[in-house]
Amino acid sequence: MRHAFTLGLDFGTTSVRAIVVDTRDGRIAGTHVCPYPSGDQGVWLDPHDVHLARQHPGDYLVGLEVAVCGALDEAAGWPGFARERVVGIGVDTTGSTPLPIDASCRPLALDPRWQAHPAAQAWLWKDHTGAAQAAAITATAAAHAPHLLAPIGGTYSSEWFWSKIWRCLEVAPDVFEAAASWVELADYIPAVLTGVRDTRAIVRGVCAAGHKALYSPAWGGLPDHAFLARLDPRLAALRPRLFDVAHPPDRPAGTLCAAWAGRLGLSAETVVAVGAFDAHYGAIGAGIRVGTLVKIIGTSTCDCAIAPAGDHVPDIPGICGIVDGSILPGFLGIEAGQSAVGDLLKWWVEGVCEGDASLHDHLTREAAALAPGQSGLVALDWNNGNRTILVDPRLAGLLVGQTLHTSRAEIYRALIEATAFGARAIVERLVERGIPIDRVVCCGGIAEKNDLFMQIYADVLGHPMLTAGSPQTPALGSAVSAAVAAGVFPGFDEAQAAMVHDGSRTFTPRDGARAVYDELYGVYREMHDVFGAVAGARAALPTVMKRLLDLRERVVAAQRGGAA
Amino acid sequence: MRHAFTLGLDFGTTSVRAIVVDTRDGRIAGTHVCPYPSGDQGVWLDPHDVHLARQHPGDYLVGLEVAVCGALDEAAGWPGFARERVVGIGVDTTGSTPLPIDASCRPLALDPRWQAHPAAQAWLWKDHTGAAQAAAITATAAAHAPHLLAPIGGTYSSEWFWSKIWRCLEVAPDVFEAAASWVELADYIPAVLTGVRDTRAIVRGVCAAGHKALYSPAWGGLPDHAFLARLDPRLAALRPRLFDVAHPPDRPAGTLCAAWAGRLGLSAETVVAVGAFDAHYGAIGAGIRVGTLVKIIGTSTCDCAIAPAGDHVPDIPGICGIVDGSILPGFLGIEAGQSAVGDLLKWWVEGVCEGDASLHDHLTREAAALAPGQSGLVALDWNNGNRTILVDPRLAGLLVGQTLHTSRAEIYRALIEATAFGARAIVERLVERGIPIDRVVCCGGIAEKNDLFMQIYADVLGHPMLTAGSPQTPALGSAVSAAVAAGVFPGFDEAQAAMVHDGSRTFTPRDGARAVYDELYGVYREMHDVFGAVAGARAALPTVMKRLLDLRERVVAAQRGGAA
Repeated sequence: MRHAFTLGLDFGTTSVRAIVVDTRDGRIAGTHVCPYPSGDQGVWLDPHDVHLARQHPGDYLVGLEVAVCGALDEAAGWPGFARERVVGIGVDTTGSTPLPIDASCRPLALDPRWQAHPAAQAWLWKDHTGAAQAAAITATAAAHAPHLLAPIGGTYSSEWFWSKIWRCLEVAPDVFEAAASWVELADYIPAVLTGVRDTRAIVRGVCAAGHKALYSPAWGGLPDHAFLARLDPRLAALRPRLFDVAHPPDRPAGTLCAAWAGRLGLSAETVVAVGAFDAHYGAIGAGIRVGTLVKIIGTSTCDCAIAPAGDHVPDIPGICGIVDGSILPGFLGIEAGQSAVGDLLKWWVEGVCEGDASLHDHLTREAAALAPGQSGLVALDWNNGNRTILVDPRLAGLLVGQTLHTSRAEIYRALIEATAFGARAIVERLVERGIPIDRVVCCGGIAEKNDLFMQIYADVLGHPMLTAGSPQTPALGSAVSAAVAAGVFPGFDEAQAAMVHDGSRTFTPRDGARAVYDELYGVYREMHDVFGAVAGARAALPTVMKRLLDLRERVVAAQRGGAA
Repeated sequence: MRHAFTLGLDFGTTSVRAIVVDTRDGRIAGTHVCPYPSGDQGVWLDPHDVHLARQHPGDYLVGLEVAVCGALDEAAGWPGFARERVVGIGVDTTGSTPLPIDASCRPLALDPRWQAHPAAQAWLWKDHTGAAQAAAITATAAAHAPHLLAPIGGTYSSEWFWSKIWRCLEVAPDVFEAAASWVELADYIPAVLTGVRDTRAIVRGVCAAGHKALYSPAWGGLPDHAFLARLDPRLAALRPRLFDVAHPPDRPAGTLCAAWAGRLGLSAETVVAVGAFDAHYGAIGAGIRVGTLVKIIGTSTCDCAIAPAGDHVPDIPGICGIVDGSILPGFLGIEAGQSAVGDLLKWWVEGVCEGDASLHDHLTREAAALAPGQSGLVALDWNNGNRTILVDPRLAGLLVGQTLHTSRAEIYRALIEATAFGARAIVERLVERGIPIDRVVCCGGIAEKNDLFMQIYADVLGHPMLTAGSPQTPALGSAVSAAVAAGVFPGFDEAQAAMVHDGSRTFTPRDGARAVYDELYGVYREMHDVFGAVAGARAALPTVMKRLLDLRERVVAAQRGGAA
């Protein structure tokens, strides 16, 4: 086989990253990051509505060109590299991030008539303006089409495709009427690269469609006309202008169009893979396989697992998405997540303690000197709601056990622990529903940088925590998908074996800490179930504070004993 | 009546204050404060035991002389003042602060043999080393002498007389054996001033005895021999060396002894009143009467009320003390309190935000700009346990409702509100048990300085909040008592009418705020009753977070409506 390279493109919240990957060993030959030029760090905000978050589609095109050219330039010095050896391009993006397009597949926002209209932009994943629409979709589905809710854990989210399009219809009917179709960013970029000019010719990925747009072959694709008409007849009228079929990442979206081949200096034979969300391609880049949970730990956390598609997989209450082929072809892709992880620590450090990155380091050092249970604190990690397993954005944070001596470092540690408890609740739900988890691989900035965080997770989950071999798992996974689409490998197994490696750091559970965390998790779970309105919750809340004080005293006594 | 002056002495946690008061109008002719010279701001601490807090009795004697002489010197310029016109001295102190003394009434700690021994010092009110002893006293009384628990709300405290003496017996039996008797600081200072040399001749105040030492004429004084013997036979053996009778503040402890008359430059005819705790004399100095609740708001809060002694007053569960004559002769003195008020704000500002006094001001300004309910937060004010109405030191703090946008000022306000909710729970308990409350007078540093705090209390309690006319209500109350003891007035009514005045600041409940706080108090009370293990607690905890979010949204919407 000739020496081949692929490009992995990762469209994030604030920037786009391109990497050039050597398909022989997965090493990165070149990389470049382009911040989005407009908005507040790339995001259009509304000072009057904290729920609004949009992006200008023109930023994607600028970022695409700058990042790819920069990465290719850097790769120029790599042994064996040549631009004609770039055989494939893979694309991952945030999502659900849909945007309205005209009949020629041009984003409405690139039309001078609409360019300043907020509803004509891309509706970024974290835009929550469609909360009322999401609630109405959930209620309507529960009453008239409960099958739609089973694979999404029972609740449709304001972050997803239909909530956003419906919201647009309500607040900006002129934009809605001007749109020939809507497309997920993950599908839009491959369409751009392959030069698609017909909305029906866009190759849609099953990842976005299945997890966010209620798409399933089981009911003939998107929700049917009757269901959408119950929401709004105009949504039903949009349905034929969307798509009928969505694809897993084992077929190409097409080849590079002449215009972009010229712009990037690449061959027009370069294969463009089907696009997918960052978490899903990230799971591939982290080495997902049956039995492996991949945790992408960032501001929020996304958990990915797979199960053989032939197996009977029961509905898993509270798991956001189970979609055939959404991660790897031939496997059910299972997605879960936590609404605030890095954001929770950022809130504490920046929002409350009014510190900066150095305070994160300082508090991490102080928190690392504490023993599990020593603070007497337990928190719920719900400052941004609970995505999995309660699927309820209208929850809030809780901290219990503080005394007059409680320090900011103790609370910092309690917040890390809270996110670990939330992660354990997800793993327990998966395992009890028959999804085996025997290996946890973590990626994302926190996994890379914060050993205390990783050790707490190992102790709380009772599993070794592995780290991914690449700091850029989404872009690497995109490059892996591109290598498969381009035929460098016969399938993902072979591509992952060559291109994906475990990281060098592994965190192993410590017996003493596990025992204490089992107790603290018990308290967390009681609070979780009561305040989360879990049916049949059993809790001994009247003794919570005393149990925490008792545990603290035992831990302190054991420390003294150990020191004596 | 000749122009008479009295001295009020206030022995606090860190210093002693003396004031010279003009009995014609209560104005202060001279004042002086002497910080205790030893310890950490006057307190002996143990780096290995956060529960230990002692004071060196020598500090009291130094402080007494320095403060009185300073105040008398300052009064020298007052129209009509002369030292021979000082007719009485009143003394208030912290408590329960017992100290071991020898047969000549000398503190053991002034004996070179014991001077460095921690157990030979005064056991400061906030010393909690006797927690196990307190629990054992409560359990023994519940089983064998339940009548002892009724007037103290059902639970004996580690802060009180017997817990501390028993603890001394357990950890320092040599000190216990060396003590001829034990005396409350409030009784020790008058004994010093009157030159008492016989432990049985010390005049004991009913305030300390009744509230802290389980003293009541109803059962013949202190707990009987049989009860004490159940705790430890050596405690029973101590009983005859303590006292049989304790007195309300309507009789003198004696007159100034020659030695102290000479030392202070005062007449040996100067009358010394019976000593009492700072809160109780403070209540007098704040104008207590039937229907008035006096709140002394400091690091913790002490609430005082009175009821006619002839009335049938039921046991009031959770009220720490109901003692005949402990505040005013002829009235039942009723004492309640909150374990952390100023301390809770100090914890937030200094312990967590790591700021100083200027941050208190800053957060107060920011918090004042918030509307009730706007933060979506509710806290429990239990970082130092709950004194009233749960009487449980083994409780801890709780904060619920935080989002990723919650600010330190919002939490600061939520903590103030939590203490106001705790105050409301106390008032509701008093009123439902037949103690009328139609007037609330506040004193202490927070009441003096923090208008936001006072307004929140008015809104939460639904009562106008008055401020005391004097910033030094305990010392003023001591001076009032001295004036009565010296015969300047026939009784406390007349003395208070002449010497005690309301402050100029009154805070009135605002209707809109009251309605929101009624809702928030409902949430507080649900959390309070569940986590406080109140029997029959009814709470809808699964909806707590949603109710707080809903309330916040309504408040914000109303603000926008009001602004439009």
